[in-house]
Amino acid sequence: MPEQPRPKTHIAYHTQEAIYVRDVDLVNDLIGKVSFTEMMFFQITGRRPAPSQVALLDAVLVTLMEHGFTPSVIAARMIYVSAPEALQSAVAAGLLGVGSTFVGSMENAVKLLDEILGAEEGEQARATAIAKRYRESRQPLPGFGHHLHKPDDPRSARLIALARQNGVLGNYLRALETLSKAIDEVYGRHITINATGAIAAVLGEIGFPQEVMRGVALVSRAAGLVGHILEESREPAARFIWEMAEHDVPYESGES
Amino acid sequence: MPEQPRPKTHIAYHTQEAIYVRDVDLVNDLIGKVSFTEMMFFQITGRRPAPSQVALLDAVLVTLMEHGFTPSVIAARMIYVSAPEALQSAVAAGLLGVGSTFVGSMENAVKLLDEILGAEEGEQARATAIAKRYRESRQPLPGFGHHLHKPDDPRSARLIALARQNGVLGNYLRALETLSKAIDEVYGRHITINATGAIAAVLGEIGFPQEVMRGVALVSRAAGLVGHILEESREPAARFIWEMAEHDVPYESGES
Amino acid sequence: MPEQPRPKTHIAYHTQEAIYVRDVDLVNDLIGKVSFTEMMFFQITGRRPAPSQVALLDAVLVTLMEHGFTPSVIAARMIYVSAPEALQSAVAAGLLGVGSTFVGSMENAVKLLDEILGAEEGEQARATAIAKRYRESRQPLPGFGHHLHKPDDPRSARLIALARQNGVLGNYLRALETLSKAIDEVYGRHITINATGAIAAVLGEIGFPQEVMRGVALVSRAAGLVGHILEESREPAARFIWEMAEHDVPYESGES
Amino acid sequence: MPEQPRPKTHIAYHTQEAIYVRDVDLVNDLIGKVSFTEMMFFQITGRRPAPSQVALLDAVLVTLMEHGFTPSVIAARMIYVSAPEALQSAVAAGLLGVGSTFVGSMENAVKLLDEILGAEEGEQARATAIAKRYRESRQPLPGFGHHLHKPDDPRSARLIALARQNGVLGNYLRALETLSKAIDEVYGRHITINATGAIAAVLGEIGFPQEVMRGVALVSRAAGLVGHILEESREPAARFIWEMAEHDVPYESGES
Repeated sequence: MPEQPRPKTHIAYHTQEAIYVRDVDLVNDLIGKVSFTEMMFFQITGRRPAPSQVALLDAVLVTLMEHGFTPSVIAARMIYVSAPEALQSAVAAGLLGVGSTFVGSMENAVKLLDEILGAEEGEQARATAIAKRYRESRQPLPGFGHHLHKPDDPRSARLIALARQNGVLGNYLRALETLSKAIDEVYGRHITINATGAIAAVLGEIGFPQEVMRGVALVSRAAGLVGHILEESREPAARFIWEMAEHDVPYESGES
Repeated sequence: MPEQPRPKTHIAYHTQEAIYVRDVDLVNDLIGKVSFTEMMFFQITGRRPAPSQVALLDAVLVTLMEHGFTPSVIAARMIYVSAPEALQSAVAAGLLGVGSTFVGSMENAVKLLDEILGAEEGEQARATAIAKRYRESRQPLPGFGHHLHKPDDPRSARLIALARQNGVLGNYLRALETLSKAIDEVYGRHITINATGAIAAVLGEIGFPQEVMRGVALVSRAAGLVGHILEESREPAARFIWEMAEHDVPYESGES
Repeated sequence: MPEQPRPKTHIAYHTQEAIYVRDVDLVNDLIGKVSFTEMMFFQITGRRPAPSQVALLDAVLVTLMEHGFTPSVIAARMIYVSAPEALQSAVAAGLLGVGSTFVGSMENAVKLLDEILGAEEGEQARATAIAKRYRESRQPLPGFGHHLHKPDDPRSARLIALARQNGVLGNYLRALETLSKAIDEVYGRHITINATGAIAAVLGEIGFPQEVMRGVALVSRAAGLVGHILEESREPAARFIWEMAEHDVPYESGES
Repeated sequence: MPEQPRPKTHIAYHTQEAIYVRDVDLVNDLIGKVSFTEMMFFQITGRRPAPSQVALLDAVLVTLMEHGFTPSVIAARMIYVSAPEALQSAVAAGLLGVGSTFVGSMENAVKLLDEILGAEEGEQARATAIAKRYRESRQPLPGFGHHLHKPDDPRSARLIALARQNGVLGNYLRALETLSKAIDEVYGRHITINATGAIAAVLGEIGFPQEVMRGVALVSRAAGLVGHILEESREPAARFIWEMAEHDVPYESGES
C-alpha cells in the first residue's frame, strides 16, 4: 500500500438501503424535491443554492444548449451514424469540442474580471491596461466579439438584465461593464460583450467555481446534442454533409 | 453536389440579432423563462412539457447524477490528472462509461414494457412469458436486480410514487408492476425493480423518446462528473487509486 | 479490502532501472530490435509473431489507415478546430466512429467464417444456409458489398493474394471463398468481398484475437487521423464544411 | 455557398476501382510493400521515409506502447467494463489521458531544443539561460526528471544511442545534450533526460512535424490499450480496482 495520506471524498456514499449526497438522503430529501439545476449546484459546490442562484444557473444553461449546426453538433452526428449503437460516443465526441476556441474563453474572461476586481490602482485603470495589453498583443479578447452577432450579442444583454433582476451582488457585472467601456475606448469602436463574457460574469456572481466553469457548457450541450442525435436518427443529415465534404474539398497533389 | 434529397433541421437557426430554437426566440422567450429541464425537454422533443413532465424529468435527472466512485467517475478522474487543461476530456471519458452494463439496460427495459403493453394475449400472459424467457436463457433481466440495493432499490419506489402523484397515464407503470409480479412468481423469489427499470417506466410515461433515453443519464452524469473533477482538483484521489492499482494488481508471467 | 480473488496482469511491470513487457526487457530487447507491428502483435497476444504474421498485420494496418474525408475524419477535424490545444481529443473523437456501421462488421464477418469452419453438415452447406438466412432477413451481409467499390473492392483481392503468398494455413480464406460463392449463387448476382471481409479472414489466419479485431482499425486510423489533423492545422477545411452544413441543411418548422 | 477560398486536401482520393494516398496507389503500391511505420510517416508527412527514419520512428513507437497500469490504462479498463460492446470507447477514453501531464511535455521539450538551436548568443549560453529560467520559476523541466526512473531513465540512453547508430544529423541530439549538461550544472545535481525528452529529440532528428508529435504517443498507446482491454476481457481487474477505490477513498462530511 502506498504510504501517502489517504484521500477522502465529500460527495457521496451509499448503504444497502440509502444513498447520501453531501450528507443529504438522495431518495427522501432530493428526488422529487429539488430541480436538476438545484441538484447540479449542490453536487458541484456542496452548498444549497439560493433561488437567485438557481434562476441564473438555469438562464446560463438555457443559453448554452443550442446554436444550430456547430462543429460540436457536426462531430456528434458523424459519430452517431458511424456507431448508432453507442449514443454515448456521439455525445462524448461532441463534448470534446467544448475547448478553447468557442467556450474556454469563459475561463479567461473570468480571470480578467478577477484581475479588475482585485486591482490596487483602481478598477478603471486596470480595465484600460487590460484593453491596451490585448490590443498591443493582437490577441483575441476573451468574452468580447462575435463573428456573427454584431453589433451586439443578444444573449449578453439578456443575461446581464436577468442578473440585475435577481439582485446579485454585482461585482462581476460591474467589472464586465468597466472592461467593456475600456475596450470600446481603447479600440476606438464598439466590440460586443459576447455570450461567453456575460456568462463568465453571471457565473462569477452566483459563486460557481471558476475551475469548472466550462462544466456548465458541457452539461447544457450534452442536452443539446441529444436533441440533434434524435433528429439525425429520424431525418439523417450526416451522410449529406459527408458527401458534400468529399465533393467540395477536392484532392490536389502536393503537400499542405 | 450529391443528388439525394436535401435534409433539413427542425431544431434551430440564427440571424445576426436572434437565435430561434424550434421557432421560439431563445433570448426573449426562453432564457430566464424556462428551467434547464423544461428547455431540455423542448430541445429534444419539440414540445413544451406539462408541469408533471418537468417534475418527473427533474426527478430522473436528480436520481442519476451521483452514485459515488463508479467506474465512470474513476475514468474521469484518471483523465483529469493526465490532462487537467482539458476538462471536457475528463467528462467525455466518464460519459463513455454510460453503456450497456449500467445504464443501457434502460432501453431494453422499456422495450419489454412496450412488448407487454401491445400484447394481444393480455398483459399478464406476456409478462409471464417474458419472465420465463429470461429465466431459461439465464440472461440478466433489464431493469431488475441490483448487486447492492437489496431487497429493494430505494430509488425505484420513490420514482414510482412520484409518477403516481404527478397523475400520469400509468400504462408504463402498470406494465412494470405486472412484469415485476410475474418475475417474482417465475423466479420464486423477489427481485427488485432497480433504478433503471423505474426510470424506463417514468420516461415512458412522460413521452420521452425511447431512442435517446440514455441521453438523460448522459446529461445528469455530466453534472455529477463535474463535481468529482472539482473535488479531484482540490483533494486528489486519482494518484492514490493509480498506485493502489499498480501495487495490488501484481504482474505474473504467462498469458491471461 | 474486497474479498474476491485478486486479479493479476500478464502485460508489464517496471523497476527503477527497467521495464519488462511480457517478461522481455523493453529497453535492451525490444526498442530498436522489433518494429511497431511486431511489438503490437506481441503486446496484444503475448506471442512473438512469425514473419508472415507481421507481413499480414502490416498489410491490414496499411489498408485501413486512410480513405479520404470519412465521417471519422470530419469529426476529428471539427474537434480539432474547437480544441486545438488538445490533439488527443480530436483523435479520440474520430476513433469513436470506428463502430458498427463501417468497421464493426469485421467482427460479425469472422463469426460467420467460424460458423462455416465448425459446421458438421459441411462447409458449403453451411455457407449456403448463411447466405439464405441473410437474404431472407434482408440484413446487410457482414464483410460483403460496398457502396462505392463495385463490382469488386480492390483491397480485398490484394489482401487475399498476400495471405496466400505468405503461406498461411488457409482455413479462414477458404471459408471466405466458400461463403462468397454461396452468396453470389443465392443472391443471383455478384456481391464483392469488401475490405472488412478480407481483413476478418486475414486476421483470423494470423491468430489475431477476435475479441479485439476492431483494435487493428483503431491503431491504424489513429495514424490516419493524425495526418488529417496536421493538414487541418495548415490548410483548414473544417470551417468550410461547417459553413456548408449550416447553409445547406436549412431550418424548417415542425418536428422531424 | 460561403465565399471563402475553397480548401483542398492533399492526402487521399478514391475512384470506383482504386484508392490513392498522396498520389500513390494504395492497393498496388502500398499494401504489402510498406510497413505500418513507413505508411504512418508517409501519411503524416507526405514524404517517403529513409530507412533510418523508419528505424527511429519504430523505436519511439515501441518505447511508448506500454508502461503498466497507468491512469490511461485504468480509464480504458473502467470504460470497457461499462460498455464492452463499444471497444472504441475504451480506447478513446484511454487516449484522452495523453495530455499535458505525462506526454505533452514532449512538445515543450522540442521547443526548448529549437530555442537552443536557433540561439544567436551560442547554444551553451542559451541552454544555461533556459536552465536558470526554469530553476527560478520552479516549473517542471519538460523532458527532464522522472519520479521512478532514477538516476537515469533507461529508455532515453537507448533511444539516443539508436539515433547515433542510425546516422542522423545530430542537431537535436546535440541540443539535448547541451541542455542536459547545463541543467546538471545549474541545479547542482543530475536530473535524468526522461523518455519524453529523448523522444522529442529523436522525432526532431527524423523531421517528424512538431505540431503533431503527441500523435506518435496516441498511435502507440492505442495498441497498448488494446492489449489491456483483451486482458480485461479475460482476467478482469477493473471491478477489483473499483471496489478498492470505493473502499479506500472513504466519505467524510464537509467540503473539499
